[in-house]
Amino acid sequence: MQQEIVEQLKKIVGEKWVDTDEERVWKYSHEHTHESYGLVAPKPVGGSVIVKPVKTEEVSEIMKLAYEVDIPVIPRGAGTALAANATPNQPSIILSLERMNKIIEVDDTNLIITSEAAVSLGDLIEYLKGEGNLHFPLHPGDEGAQVGAMVAMNAGGVRAVRHGVMRDQVRGLEAVLPTGEIIQTGGSMGKLAKDNAGLNLTHLLIGSEGILGIITRVMLKLHPKPRYSATLIASFPERVAAFRSVPRLIKEGIIPMAVEYVEKDQIKETASDLGKRWPAPDGEGDLILIMAEKSEDDFYEQAREIEKICSEEGVLNIFMAESPAEQRDIIEIRSHILPAIEKDIVDSPDITVPRSQLENLMQALDELAEKFNTRIPVIAHAGDGNLHAFILKENGQVPDYYDELKESMYQKTLELGGTITGEHGVGSLRLNQLKMQFSTRELEIMWGIKKAFDPKNLLNPGKKVIQFKN
Amino acid sequence: MQQEIVEQLKKIVGEKWVDTDEERVWKYSHEHTHESYGLVAPKPVGGSVIVKPVKTEEVSEIMKLAYEVDIPVIPRGAGTALAANATPNQPSIILSLERMNKIIEVDDTNLIITSEAAVSLGDLIEYLKGEGNLHFPLHPGDEGAQVGAMVAMNAGGVRAVRHGVMRDQVRGLEAVLPTGEIIQTGGSMGKLAKDNAGLNLTHLLIGSEGILGIITRVMLKLHPKPRYSATLIASFPERVAAFRSVPRLIKEGIIPMAVEYVEKDQIKETASDLGKRWPAPDGEGDLILIMAEKSEDDFYEQAREIEKICSEEGVLNIFMAESPAEQRDIIEIRSHILPAIEKDIVDSPDITVPRSQLENLMQALDELAEKFNTRIPVIAHAGDGNLHAFILKENGQVPDYYDELKESMYQKTLELGGTITGEHGVGSLRLNQLKMQFSTRELEIMWGIKKAFDPKNLLNPGKKVIQFKN
Repeated sequence: MQQEIVEQLKKIVGEKWVDTDEERVWKYSHEHTHESYGLVAPKPVGGSVIVKPVKTEEVSEIMKLAYEVDIPVIPRGAGTALAANATPNQPSIILSLERMNKIIEVDDTNLIITSEAAVSLGDLIEYLKGEGNLHFPLHPGDEGAQVGAMVAMNAGGVRAVRHGVMRDQVRGLEAVLPTGEIIQTGGSMGKLAKDNAGLNLTHLLIGSEGILGIITRVMLKLHPKPRYSATLIASFPERVAAFRSVPRLIKEGIIPMAVEYVEKDQIKETASDLGKRWPAPDGEGDLILIMAEKSEDDFYEQAREIEKICSEEGVLNIFMAESPAEQRDIIEIRSHILPAIEKDIVDSPDITVPRSQLENLMQALDELAEKFNTRIPVIAHAGDGNLHAFILKENGQVPDYYDELKESMYQKTLELGGTITGEHGVGSLRLNQLKMQFSTRELEIMWGIKKAFDPKNLLNPGKKVIQFKN
Repeated sequence: MQQEIVEQLKKIVGEKWVDTDEERVWKYSHEHTHESYGLVAPKPVGGSVIVKPVKTEEVSEIMKLAYEVDIPVIPRGAGTALAANATPNQPSIILSLERMNKIIEVDDTNLIITSEAAVSLGDLIEYLKGEGNLHFPLHPGDEGAQVGAMVAMNAGGVRAVRHGVMRDQVRGLEAVLPTGEIIQTGGSMGKLAKDNAGLNLTHLLIGSEGILGIITRVMLKLHPKPRYSATLIASFPERVAAFRSVPRLIKEGIIPMAVEYVEKDQIKETASDLGKRWPAPDGEGDLILIMAEKSEDDFYEQAREIEKICSEEGVLNIFMAESPAEQRDIIEIRSHILPAIEKDIVDSPDITVPRSQLENLMQALDELAEKFNTRIPVIAHAGDGNLHAFILKENGQVPDYYDELKESMYQKTLELGGTITGEHGVGSLRLNQLKMQFSTRELEIMWGIKKAFDPKNLLNPGKKVIQFKN
């Protein structure tokens, strides 16, 4: 990075907030992907500078400067991404939003929270505890994740069955375009329930992985708190029976907040790592159903129906947790599965199929495991058809068959009407697989959209966002 | 239209399905806008040809031909649009999807209906009556509207409070691109609950008013039928009190299917036109609350809460309809307000603001009515902040102040964080007002997206989709 540019950045944000220290630049050049899946994730390069604006106008000035001098900008949240989604591959301005961490307003008339991009999920949840009857129902995972980046990544996670993914929570966005202009979508307050003026830029920015704009402020829907909650664990003798139960429940009008599948051996081991005990000891795998209803009566009516359907599918036991402490314990153990096993894994494709095809996908994974003489453990957001399938290391190394196994998993997923990524996004890690899912013309259009926003391809350019002729 | 091109179209769809008859071409060149708001809507031009493909491959061939010979294509549904959204302004191929009217599948495992584009809303509702426990909750208005066009227009209507607008119902789309390729979004079955691969083309096509692609097939979410429904009419002495009640109800966790506001004089007159009686005679205006709950007990609990809040806002009476016949009557009368008054109106901007701002918008409309010495009656989808404000004729003519009044309404709406169109879309009728809502850079980006899809600007080009330098 030329000293002159560093000086100009200092003029924009103040000397204290520009950092060229090699070690810290290195730290800001990689994300969770690199630590957990270090064997396959791309390596970051040096020569970058970290800059930490405190307001949207500064983000805009930085972006304008970058456009003038042709330097890539990598917007950065908390670094919790899992597909190398925000990593420089050439000397870049790493734009960390961390100082833009204020909650602007809770609007209890329109049921909308307006928040700066870098407010973490954990802080958002904590803040809302003081706001009486309102809550934000999604819980996409790591509570360190920042809301702006959660929108940029269209995060999903465990609580998408009833309320959908991040996309479904957004009423409006403030963003800085690659060319530096500030835009506000969803009306000037970002609070519209209906808006049909022009092409929808809000939904284009959601899930765009920071290639179309830097999201600086989000307006998210809030919901009245359900009055009664409970968590059920249904233990099945084999996982296929668990997956068969899920669509049957939903069809009967039982729409829990979350329907998770976990492997019994993994969840027990995770619990034990945490010094806890998993309350459902039997079977091969569990469905975890997080219920939230208007009343205790409503819940019990649903619980009876759940018991009936799961029994028909051969459930061994159903455990019920009603106290907040018990429920928290279950969620905490569930949340720690990934940390508990990630030292052993090379990659965890978040392949997703229509809910009805989960059973077939599990069958296909079993066949692949046999073919490659390995195990393929899974965690599933079963209500969403969304699987995390773990490709394991062999003797601490990437196995020879890694590429072949990964491609086979994607191939089978696509045959079943699926997508190569339901949650983690494309990043650098899955860029080469995009062409398995999309035609050349579709990729050309996506590239055309990128060019409409970012004529110089400077915002989070990756290796080249979409890899083919410009 | 050159005879040679007509012959080529006949080769694609068969002679019977190509029509150059002047009168029918005229009929297919205009839509509901022209009949009801004929005074201001653009006039269609002659020289076009109607073509009626029966399958997606034919749509693709027509589009490829059009691209080869540089002729505009206007995709056409039932012609129920209200902003001149699909009207040729030069000799064009009018592509009517009317023969693509089959329901392909009801998938009761994934809760998705797959339908060809030209299935009408009425037929969809009727079909689902035979499908047991499942229903499609939205009701955007005219039951003749076709589902593909409802997605292309992102229709909203009366039942958006709980389940959102068309955008929120779409799991996947099949569409023909302007360059003729067929694409399928949301996985090869269009049934994914989570999908983060690439930029989201589904949401770009939704609400794109037929400028980015021709939607040929839609995959829409279905929902388990609620077990108990009832409709309440709450009569208020003044409309501002009605609007104040709405956010209070929703904040308390009362999320009806619909929350409508109607003016008492209009709704009574409409009922009388239909030979019926409006069951709530008192007050200046009514809130109509369409409730759908899991049980009768749930409903009564909510009804008590509704009564409490509305009483605090000075409600005069609350009428309750429980029988299906009574409820149907209310909806039927409500649906006929527009037909009953449209002979008297010039235009009906569907201005939309954050829910909390409806009160202020009503105040502003009252002031404008006074300024221009007219009345501005409204219908409101009050739960969505969405208003239909009627600009009336004077002595059967467009009043001199029409443009000034319209611009003032838009201006005030935008100041209140709103949008110039919550439902009807831009069309030709509001093209010149887009720049009131968007910056030049935003319009440039939208135009860039159009070019990425449609390099020759041939699909529903209008006057020029976005009017400024190319």
